[in-house]
Amino acid sequence: MSKYQHIQEEAYAANMQLPKLGLVLFTFGNVSAADKDLGVFAIKPSGVPYEKLTPGKMVIVDFEGTTVKGKLRPSSDTKTHAVLYKHWPTIGGISHTHSTYATAWAQSLRDIPIFGTTHADHNTVDIPCAPPMDDTMIRGDYEYETGFQIMNCLKQKGLNYEEVEMILVGNHAPFTWGKSAEKAVYNSAVLESIAQMAWLTEQINPEAGRLKDALIKKHFERKHGPGSYYGQ
Amino acid sequence: MSKYQHIQEEAYAANMQLPKLGLVLFTFGNVSAADKDLGVFAIKPSGVPYEKLTPGKMVIVDFEGTTVKGKLRPSSDTKTHAVLYKHWPTIGGISHTHSTYATAWAQSLRDIPIFGTTHADHNTVDIPCAPPMDDTMIRGDYEYETGFQIMNCLKQKGLNYEEVEMILVGNHAPFTWGKSAEKAVYNSAVLESIAQMAWLTEQINPEAGRLKDALIKKHFERKHGPGSYYGQ
Amino acid sequence: MSKYQHIQEEAYAANMQLPKLGLVLFTFGNVSAADKDLGVFAIKPSGVPYEKLTPGKMVIVDFEGTTVKGKLRPSSDTKTHAVLYKHWPTIGGISHTHSTYATAWAQSLRDIPIFGTTHADHNTVDIPCAPPMDDTMIRGDYEYETGFQIMNCLKQKGLNYEEVEMILVGNHAPFTWGKSAEKAVYNSAVLESIAQMAWLTEQINPEAGRLKDALIKKHFERKHGPGSYYGQ
Amino acid sequence: MSKYQHIQEEAYAANMQLPKLGLVLFTFGNVSAADKDLGVFAIKPSGVPYEKLTPGKMVIVDFEGTTVKGKLRPSSDTKTHAVLYKHWPTIGGISHTHSTYATAWAQSLRDIPIFGTTHADHNTVDIPCAPPMDDTMIRGDYEYETGFQIMNCLKQKGLNYEEVEMILVGNHAPFTWGKSAEKAVYNSAVLESIAQMAWLTEQINPEAGRLKDALIKKHFERKHGPGSYYGQ
Repeated sequence: MSKYQHIQEEAYAANMQLPKLGLVLFTFGNVSAADKDLGVFAIKPSGVPYEKLTPGKMVIVDFEGTTVKGKLRPSSDTKTHAVLYKHWPTIGGISHTHSTYATAWAQSLRDIPIFGTTHADHNTVDIPCAPPMDDTMIRGDYEYETGFQIMNCLKQKGLNYEEVEMILVGNHAPFTWGKSAEKAVYNSAVLESIAQMAWLTEQINPEAGRLKDALIKKHFERKHGPGSYYGQ
Repeated sequence: MSKYQHIQEEAYAANMQLPKLGLVLFTFGNVSAADKDLGVFAIKPSGVPYEKLTPGKMVIVDFEGTTVKGKLRPSSDTKTHAVLYKHWPTIGGISHTHSTYATAWAQSLRDIPIFGTTHADHNTVDIPCAPPMDDTMIRGDYEYETGFQIMNCLKQKGLNYEEVEMILVGNHAPFTWGKSAEKAVYNSAVLESIAQMAWLTEQINPEAGRLKDALIKKHFERKHGPGSYYGQ
Repeated sequence: MSKYQHIQEEAYAANMQLPKLGLVLFTFGNVSAADKDLGVFAIKPSGVPYEKLTPGKMVIVDFEGTTVKGKLRPSSDTKTHAVLYKHWPTIGGISHTHSTYATAWAQSLRDIPIFGTTHADHNTVDIPCAPPMDDTMIRGDYEYETGFQIMNCLKQKGLNYEEVEMILVGNHAPFTWGKSAEKAVYNSAVLESIAQMAWLTEQINPEAGRLKDALIKKHFERKHGPGSYYGQ
Repeated sequence: MSKYQHIQEEAYAANMQLPKLGLVLFTFGNVSAADKDLGVFAIKPSGVPYEKLTPGKMVIVDFEGTTVKGKLRPSSDTKTHAVLYKHWPTIGGISHTHSTYATAWAQSLRDIPIFGTTHADHNTVDIPCAPPMDDTMIRGDYEYETGFQIMNCLKQKGLNYEEVEMILVGNHAPFTWGKSAEKAVYNSAVLESIAQMAWLTEQINPEAGRLKDALIKKHFERKHGPGSYYGQ
């Protein structure tokens, strides 16, 4: 039995949630699960259809992006995952999809405004959209730079990756993360729902305003922090 | 056998309808079923996935919001249900979802205009959207106050909870109710359909007008009241 | 064996297509199948869920709208069906739904412009939207008058029911018909698709123009008339 | 065993993907698979429901559009397929659908702007929309001329069919192609997704700009050409 089996199984289960939740077409998504003690993560192999995945096909990669174990080539977005795991010590999973509504916001180069409590249950701020990187970075080590594009955007907006677990990469698509691969995928689905409802809100009322602070605070604290009372 | 089994089974069956009808993502919804003679209701436990629910996991709560029986914590919206049962003597079920289109209208802070007979088959008025409560109430007993926010909105618009069985809570999401939990869920689905069609109607014709009174009256009376002739 | 069994089975099969094609929520639709020689049609009973229907529950009604056989009350829209069968000798089936996009157009009180060949494969004209009837007719024999509302709209626009097998009843929802109940339901699904694509077309290009005459003629004649070459 | 069995099975499998991917209503689509050595292709018979298809029902047609083998009439769009196979030596499959979002763009007579990397993963240019053909051509050999309409549009825009494997036929619907029938259907699904996201992008930000050149180049080259590193 491989010492990586637990993260391969976690990554496999999380990847298989993407088509079930309607978040991917064909192979346009990838999820990884990390073991911080071992300093590696398991990630979907590139371009392999979900129905042909098995836990054993998950590729083991270290936080520099080097394949440690596995016969298949890892996801083309692997270096983005590696950079985030290396710099964000408390996350255990990352999910990347091209889900319809979140991707449309990313293509629009707009943050998703916080319009309601569904959003506030998960975040206290507008979902950030990272601006496209400059051409030098694109021509360089693109997927590696995408990791920094994500981190820089949070930094510039004064956001903490432990509080804001989702971002839109401008002109590209969303990335989400969390303490586990399962939580990262959960965040992908929540983001897609928030993105669809925010679009509809502006359609129904172009003058719709952001949620007021008292409601943002109340709903976020219902689910998070010392006084939370949601869940078991 | 518990004396609460009938409402636990009713609440369980009604909660399980939410994912089947496409009205919830993950655990973002809850339905309760009341026994007015016993002075209690059965409600979904907080944050438990639908596929792990059983009738026995439904929590029994009285009309002050105090848990009477059950090992799990009840839905975080429990006090809203309690307030409504306490003040509205003839309802037997309440449903709360974050369904996409109804929630978008709630986030838009607009009543849903009555545009057609699908709407008039169920209501004679625009679906009311309760304005957000003031900050003092939010910081106080929030879910308890949400019950009053709902009742006050109906009162201010001169509406009767027995005739209008649905409302949008501004910046939050819809609540619906009825003589049974099943009817409350039916109303959640009807509201979602009305909300989607009203949005599309305004997209297709920004000048679309409200349904005229004669048609509102005719369609509502086909389904309701002494001269109704819909159903068996 | 009942002499009505063939139309009961035809009506049953056609009604059961409505939920499969995503055209109805709950019981918001009804299909009938006529036997012109016997002077009757079989129609869905009112308010009975689709999963509880059987061929034997289809109610037999004559062309005056009088129930001939059946223990259940027929659809509340029965008189509309009766009027159309009485006046249109060559139709064998009628379908009525509140399908989302077609109903939104009906609520918008707009004809659906002919924008492409999907539309032209089935019709050479904009899908007509009948204006709401006047209040006296609404207060009178409403469902009976709906039949005349439909016929009058075609007449005023110079359209023939054998060529145009679908209409929007203003502020209400679509009715479709055809040589059989199966064809009527097929037309309901085609209309819903055309309605969705026409809405999107105007969203993408508010200046989008109607299909030109040569293409309308070509596509309609591929599927209809002496020189048609679609199908087997 | 027929010498055409391999393309019949390929065409059958590809056609059956259309309803699974949600790209067709009823029979509104057709896929073909060619054997360039034999100078023929296998194509869906006209108007036959997908659930009644078998590999043996696929009709064998040569590149002039003449049926070589098969008892059923081939798709009404057969001549369009024949023209493209005749002139484009390296393609092995063609797919035609009336998928909702791509068809709406075709009806809008607009190219689909390249807004993001999902698009750039497959194309480096806006998806071309061929203008409607002139009336003389429509009245002539319409489906044959549609093939030239497609080729002329690419030519006028300076595009190569090996690099751009999809097009919108103005006022009609999309055609896609590729090295195999499976790849052609894959392209139909990709196009539908791109079309939906492009529509949403303009809804969310009417001023949304095209993807910048460095990103177009980077993403296309990740999946295509000598330095590609996507897939196995």
